[in-house]
Amino acid sequence: MRACTLDALNAASRQEFTAVLGGIYEHAPWVAEAAFAARPFASLADLHAAMSRVVRAASEERRLALVKGHPDLAGKAARAGTLTVESAAEQASAGLDRFNDAEYAAFHRLNDAYKARFGFPFIVCARRHGKESILREFERRLANPPPAELGAALDEVARIAALRLVEKVAAPDRLNVHGRLSTHVLDVHGGRPAEGVAVELAELAGGGDARIVTRGLTNADGRTEQPLIHGRPVPIARYELRFHIGKYFAGRGVPQAEPPFLDVVPVRFAVAEPEGHHHVPLLATPWSYTTYRGS
Amino acid sequence: MRACTLDALNAASRQEFTAVLGGIYEHAPWVAEAAFAARPFASLADLHAAMSRVVRAASEERRLALVKGHPDLAGKAARAGTLTVESAAEQASAGLDRFNDAEYAAFHRLNDAYKARFGFPFIVCARRHGKESILREFERRLANPPPAELGAALDEVARIAALRLVEKVAAPDRLNVHGRLSTHVLDVHGGRPAEGVAVELAELAGGGDARIVTRGLTNADGRTEQPLIHGRPVPIARYELRFHIGKYFAGRGVPQAEPPFLDVVPVRFAVAEPEGHHHVPLLATPWSYTTYRGS
Amino acid sequence: MRACTLDALNAASRQEFTAVLGGIYEHAPWVAEAAFAARPFASLADLHAAMSRVVRAASEERRLALVKGHPDLAGKAARAGTLTVESAAEQASAGLDRFNDAEYAAFHRLNDAYKARFGFPFIVCARRHGKESILREFERRLANPPPAELGAALDEVARIAALRLVEKVAAPDRLNVHGRLSTHVLDVHGGRPAEGVAVELAELAGGGDARIVTRGLTNADGRTEQPLIHGRPVPIARYELRFHIGKYFAGRGVPQAEPPFLDVVPVRFAVAEPEGHHHVPLLATPWSYTTYRGS
Amino acid sequence: MRACTLDALNAASRQEFTAVLGGIYEHAPWVAEAAFAARPFASLADLHAAMSRVVRAASEERRLALVKGHPDLAGKAARAGTLTVESAAEQASAGLDRFNDAEYAAFHRLNDAYKARFGFPFIVCARRHGKESILREFERRLANPPPAELGAALDEVARIAALRLVEKVAAPDRLNVHGRLSTHVLDVHGGRPAEGVAVELAELAGGGDARIVTRGLTNADGRTEQPLIHGRPVPIARYELRFHIGKYFAGRGVPQAEPPFLDVVPVRFAVAEPEGHHHVPLLATPWSYTTYRGS
Repeated sequence: MRACTLDALNAASRQEFTAVLGGIYEHAPWVAEAAFAARPFASLADLHAAMSRVVRAASEERRLALVKGHPDLAGKAARAGTLTVESAAEQASAGLDRFNDAEYAAFHRLNDAYKARFGFPFIVCARRHGKESILREFERRLANPPPAELGAALDEVARIAALRLVEKVAAPDRLNVHGRLSTHVLDVHGGRPAEGVAVELAELAGGGDARIVTRGLTNADGRTEQPLIHGRPVPIARYELRFHIGKYFAGRGVPQAEPPFLDVVPVRFAVAEPEGHHHVPLLATPWSYTTYRGS
Repeated sequence: MRACTLDALNAASRQEFTAVLGGIYEHAPWVAEAAFAARPFASLADLHAAMSRVVRAASEERRLALVKGHPDLAGKAARAGTLTVESAAEQASAGLDRFNDAEYAAFHRLNDAYKARFGFPFIVCARRHGKESILREFERRLANPPPAELGAALDEVARIAALRLVEKVAAPDRLNVHGRLSTHVLDVHGGRPAEGVAVELAELAGGGDARIVTRGLTNADGRTEQPLIHGRPVPIARYELRFHIGKYFAGRGVPQAEPPFLDVVPVRFAVAEPEGHHHVPLLATPWSYTTYRGS
Repeated sequence: MRACTLDALNAASRQEFTAVLGGIYEHAPWVAEAAFAARPFASLADLHAAMSRVVRAASEERRLALVKGHPDLAGKAARAGTLTVESAAEQASAGLDRFNDAEYAAFHRLNDAYKARFGFPFIVCARRHGKESILREFERRLANPPPAELGAALDEVARIAALRLVEKVAAPDRLNVHGRLSTHVLDVHGGRPAEGVAVELAELAGGGDARIVTRGLTNADGRTEQPLIHGRPVPIARYELRFHIGKYFAGRGVPQAEPPFLDVVPVRFAVAEPEGHHHVPLLATPWSYTTYRGS
Repeated sequence: MRACTLDALNAASRQEFTAVLGGIYEHAPWVAEAAFAARPFASLADLHAAMSRVVRAASEERRLALVKGHPDLAGKAARAGTLTVESAAEQASAGLDRFNDAEYAAFHRLNDAYKARFGFPFIVCARRHGKESILREFERRLANPPPAELGAALDEVARIAALRLVEKVAAPDRLNVHGRLSTHVLDVHGGRPAEGVAVELAELAGGGDARIVTRGLTNADGRTEQPLIHGRPVPIARYELRFHIGKYFAGRGVPQAEPPFLDVVPVRFAVAEPEGHHHVPLLATPWSYTTYRGS
């Protein structure tokens, strides 16, 4: 199942259509099969709406089966390597594959409590969350009343489906499921963009845990060639940007103290909206800096 | 040996004088004894100069003996608890009492190499340095030519003596051996000093090591009641100030994202001049901040 | 009538006491005479309270006479030079002596309307206001209901009395009738206080009118030797601070564009609380600056 | 003579070609006529180079005549309305049509002195300068040695020609003769772009003269719909940007002092490179702001 265009899908047979979209809903090719009848689709939003209508129109029994078809987060299937390709990638993106034994144990307990209470596994669109945020969501939703929780689970199923659709089908519209995290470094000592500043982005978690998400180098305009995160949701998480400005100013021959007053500047911030555009610039001299939520 | 006034020293007998000042130079009460003749002293600077003159006028043999009388840094005496009271406090202030086994082993090797090269132990005014800086100094001075290094060692002896004098003798002048590190938090969202912001100061060292130096809470003027470091040199080191502004703005009922964009703001900087006045303010909103080397 | 101490007043005869304090209330030496009985006064606040009690205890007729005894603001007496010394200085401090003919005419109309409505002249503590603010107050109070307006006038009389007291009588307490306006220039390009920056403070009024209030030069700590305004209320007004940073950076040999990107930096702000402490710092490089309401 | 495409010019007859481009060099259609032979032109840069080669290859007599064919800046022809259309627009763009009598008189004197010294009128690419800058250039060039000054005049003729070409001929390349001046307002009190902030740009000249160049309103991204200056050189001049942030924050219901601490924020800066991209953002709260040369 490779990516294909919306036009190709509109022209496809039912069999081809289902072959491509059968995995959009986990273990539920019947959603794609039923949506086939609504062709042609003017946009990806149109296709997503048609598939959502199929789910909503299904019997409660079938919807429950859809939810139950999802694997446990960080569960036995994940450890045994028997997840669907999509689920494996999604769980890894949230850092669930980096759990230590204690974290696996904690998740295991939560999974058990959740299934005992609701009768189905905990589903969350893992790409929208960091490690800490997933755990917080888990605890928050465990307190939901059972009737509300099935709706919450189906909302997450729809989010997962939208992200899978965007990756599978090339179309002019992108369903607004992707966010962006970018930076910009201004050298206000020299009055120019700061070129050649090394930048790291780390996701922070409890106990001082910091996982490097990406590294970059600013170009002649003071920006990284690509946004630090783009083409995907920006996981709800705490982050630390690290700007290596001591080395930058040393490279420009700017006099500094020894050791320099500022060397690696850390900027810690949290992301609350995975689909938003997050811009975190730095205006720096060797002796001062300003940072802010930009646009 | 308790603190006393300069006036009392000027009026003291030679025996009393030496009893009070005999420990200013490590295991060398003869310095105080000889300085007694220069009484009366108009100021602490005057007394310190007189003692320095005694050392300079001493025979090379005696000066070498003075240097050799100092204990190894983080050496056997430190581990065995047989340091003079002054030396123990000084070594602890630089964090040498918190060395792990690997660090002790590294220091041991440096001590051996240093003594083999110069014939006397490595002396440094430990109060002016953090853990990392001491090690850097050690390696730098190990490369000195032997004739220059005896001078470097005696310079450190003079610095140690000056700090001990200031603590031992109450006088109007303080020899400019103390520095200061302070902060100030402005709430530029509300246009007022930020009162009640928790602030921590940590000394950073290699491998992510961070030792809390002090904690404070800002008062109605946005400052901590006491400077974060004062009445002593500010050790040459890398520091991290942590401002808990997320909690502050939450306490004022300011709308924030969930989780808040900014929570604990870290500001990392280095101190290069232990006797300087270091002021590191923060101008903050829930969405931006500015920090700088102030005055 | 020269300044004297509170102790001297407490020891003075009724005649001397009244000679010193007879002018605290305009053309109403009876207030001082009656307050004499309440001696001794522990503080200036005590004395001010005693005089206020005398006014409050007076008959309505007498209080009205007190109010009527005040001269018109920018009125005929001002133009003819027949004001009391105190009134002349106060009116000049608010810039009323710099009115052009049109402004005099406007005030004249307001004075006439006010007296027609309330039966007494408009009284305001002129030292607490700039030219624009006085006019705004005048228009605001003209709309008051007559019974409230007598109270408003007596409040201003009490403010005038408090300021006159502080100038006339030396005492440990100062009645909190003075404010302060100060600045501080940080060179965040060089990481030090900016020394030798010329600073001007202008009061702004309608039509582009700008009156220089004071000029200063920053010292080694980046501050002017004296606050820009102190020892008096800071008039409610719009101000412009002008920082000559282009010349400063040129003097330090910092490379700049020709003409420099920044030369004279204007900071416009308003003061709403004459008794407050207003601090307006500047953090500058040749290419950027930050300013804020400080503390 | 209307704008036409480079392709149309390449296909035109010599007569049509000269009709379109005859005014690129003032009163010198022979330049266009001679350049016709170099067709076809791959780009506007190619065409401009060909015309420049014609001028360089001309006899000194002819080049002098070309220079002499230019009108006086702010001279009799300007006042009498007998300039070519191009010259009239160019002189107006630099504000020369807004001279008062004293300024006309000053220019008249400079024109006379210049012609007496060099034998031809002062030529400058007026679109690259503000009123003040033209005068500074005039005085600077009056001091040139005569042989150098003819070269300086021809450089300006080439700049004028390049700008006229860009306006006359539609082509993919634009000769890099245009600059840009833009702004961006961030509301760091609310953590969002500041939408609906009124912004004015004024050009400053001596004696408090301030001419409004343009007005704008920030959009949802905190920017004006169009850059404040674009599609032309940014004149070398001193500017003042005025940001009406007091009204903006009042409109958002943010509590402020009365009068507000900040109302209209002026940012004064100079432009030295007319072809550069100048970005001057503002990060503001009701109590603070930061501005800088951005990118």
